[in-house]
Amino acid sequence: MNHRIDEMLEPGSKIGILGGGQLGRMLAVAATRLGFKSHIFEPAKNSPASQVSFQVSTASYEDEKALIEFAKDVDVITYEFENIPTSALDILEKIVPIRPGRDALRISQDRIIEKDFLSDLGLKTAPYQLVEDLSSLQTASKNIGLPAILKTTRLGYDGKGQVRLSENSNLEEEYRKLENHSLVYEGFVDFEFEVSVIAARNLSGQVACYDPGQNIHVNGILHTTTVPSQLNSKQTIDAVLIASKILESLNYIGVLGVELFHTKAGLIVNEIAPRVHNSGHWTQNGCSIDQFEQHIRAITGWPLGDGKRHTNVVMENLIGDEIKRAATLALDGNISLHLYGKNDIKPGRKMGHFNLVREK
Amino acid sequence: MNHRIDEMLEPGSKIGILGGGQLGRMLAVAATRLGFKSHIFEPAKNSPASQVSFQVSTASYEDEKALIEFAKDVDVITYEFENIPTSALDILEKIVPIRPGRDALRISQDRIIEKDFLSDLGLKTAPYQLVEDLSSLQTASKNIGLPAILKTTRLGYDGKGQVRLSENSNLEEEYRKLENHSLVYEGFVDFEFEVSVIAARNLSGQVACYDPGQNIHVNGILHTTTVPSQLNSKQTIDAVLIASKILESLNYIGVLGVELFHTKAGLIVNEIAPRVHNSGHWTQNGCSIDQFEQHIRAITGWPLGDGKRHTNVVMENLIGDEIKRAATLALDGNISLHLYGKNDIKPGRKMGHFNLVREK
Repeated sequence: MNHRIDEMLEPGSKIGILGGGQLGRMLAVAATRLGFKSHIFEPAKNSPASQVSFQVSTASYEDEKALIEFAKDVDVITYEFENIPTSALDILEKIVPIRPGRDALRISQDRIIEKDFLSDLGLKTAPYQLVEDLSSLQTASKNIGLPAILKTTRLGYDGKGQVRLSENSNLEEEYRKLENHSLVYEGFVDFEFEVSVIAARNLSGQVACYDPGQNIHVNGILHTTTVPSQLNSKQTIDAVLIASKILESLNYIGVLGVELFHTKAGLIVNEIAPRVHNSGHWTQNGCSIDQFEQHIRAITGWPLGDGKRHTNVVMENLIGDEIKRAATLALDGNISLHLYGKNDIKPGRKMGHFNLVREK
Repeated sequence: MNHRIDEMLEPGSKIGILGGGQLGRMLAVAATRLGFKSHIFEPAKNSPASQVSFQVSTASYEDEKALIEFAKDVDVITYEFENIPTSALDILEKIVPIRPGRDALRISQDRIIEKDFLSDLGLKTAPYQLVEDLSSLQTASKNIGLPAILKTTRLGYDGKGQVRLSENSNLEEEYRKLENHSLVYEGFVDFEFEVSVIAARNLSGQVACYDPGQNIHVNGILHTTTVPSQLNSKQTIDAVLIASKILESLNYIGVLGVELFHTKAGLIVNEIAPRVHNSGHWTQNGCSIDQFEQHIRAITGWPLGDGKRHTNVVMENLIGDEIKRAATLALDGNISLHLYGKNDIKPGRKMGHFNLVREK
């Protein structure tokens, strides 16, 4: 192996996946469907992805030897999460292509860089300002106003690493909860609902988007995604064009998730994720080619699916104890279950999801 | 583990699968989707199923120790092919349930026993007669007439182990091709087309059937399955009732494939297969719950999917060199590819299939 690929990878080639969670698991299954083999790199033992992969490297991202062996074994590397240590990427990239590329990772690893990037593209974001100390928090609060959200610029997800600020908040107290991190102050966006666009671009520059899905979050974690969304056809096109602009500007290869707020003033980009996305799980039961296969196709130089949706779908996450609903949900013939094979139930932990399918 | 199950198996339980081919592979993926782990028992190395399974035992069906270890490790055993040596089944069954049960295997392993069983149920089959020597072949030919097919009673599949007989055939010459096997003489059935019903029955006796698919064979190997079939609604119900009668009479647990000839005189049973079936692959893209998940649900005591079909589908097999069409087929957004990860292309070898999806 160990060669740069510029063309379509043949079935039988090996896809390296950084991260062994549920996204890695579903990527591994999709790779298999196209006749590829999967090799998971993941520090934890018995990860969800390891249960369905051809091969597993159980090692830390600091383990240079393991990283080199992994990279030499595979034909292309992708990932299921954006917070991969830069040092690991530096090692891997010398041996085999990483897709999506480093630019997308650099941008999405830091909320400030991401928002600067989006603004430079002429896309709307929430008003934001870097917070380096208590005094700059107070300035931001004056400039942008309250309510607002204070977030770590790096490593936050599923509502972690952020506090909400209102007129009644004690700014100093809230600041203490997150100090020692680089922070961003984000102004409140009065949005009517949130949608996300799952878009893809492949090695030849072909772009395809799925229908925007409408998201509902509970306690900062995605609860449901519904297709079709409430966007009208003009707004749907706007959403797709935003995603496409981001893909093109990055020469992006792979699936990208773009979260958008629908406001009275138009669409505002909330955040982007350079990977398959929880809000795209509905494609497993709504499309001939789902987001996982779409991602594998994109990074292996295969043609993309056209993203056409053949059914209406509501995707719902099963968080923590909700996994216990599985047996009851299985009674409904319109429900397709996807459980992640996680051993321990923990509050807030994504244990599975299901797609409720309705004919269009 | 190592206990008899009479109730729903919990996610995290382990499914033992005898056989590591493409059917085992797709069963393993389906098991994973419900949070189960898979353990494949297969003599050959690097089998299609081993690439996506939690665990693999690479051992012969004569290896008693390996069989016992396998059985002790899993919560239930199923299989992807019906010709499992009886001695292996005897060992396994003492430790853990095998589903579908021994009756279904005994019947489907022998064409004469199968036809006797079907006739006893009052179902129509082709006229048939046991052939033990050249003289009984000549008698059968006189009784039943020509054209006809002479088949081995055991181990035939995909057109192997059979010869066609016509008025011009030299019976003795044809007989020599198959002698040393137990044989059955099957009269020619003047059918208009063939359909198959993929039916399932679970531990609580719940039965569900998918829409009959219409099959076209080329060189004795399934080429395409199309849903909906040309059966009218009365005939569709007849087909489903036939499958249901077989399930009930065997107290069957799992998915069963029933091949039927549609003739002017009604439906005639061609053969049954106590497993997921090539002609049921269309369910992967036509139904919320496909035949593989349906089988896993049935054998683990889960509720069955209702078999409802949400799209029209044409499934087409990729045999031998046809796998090279994959890249071109991938250009069509209505096509969902399923490749089996087999290393070597051989003539007549099933390398993959695809589902062409059309809105209803």
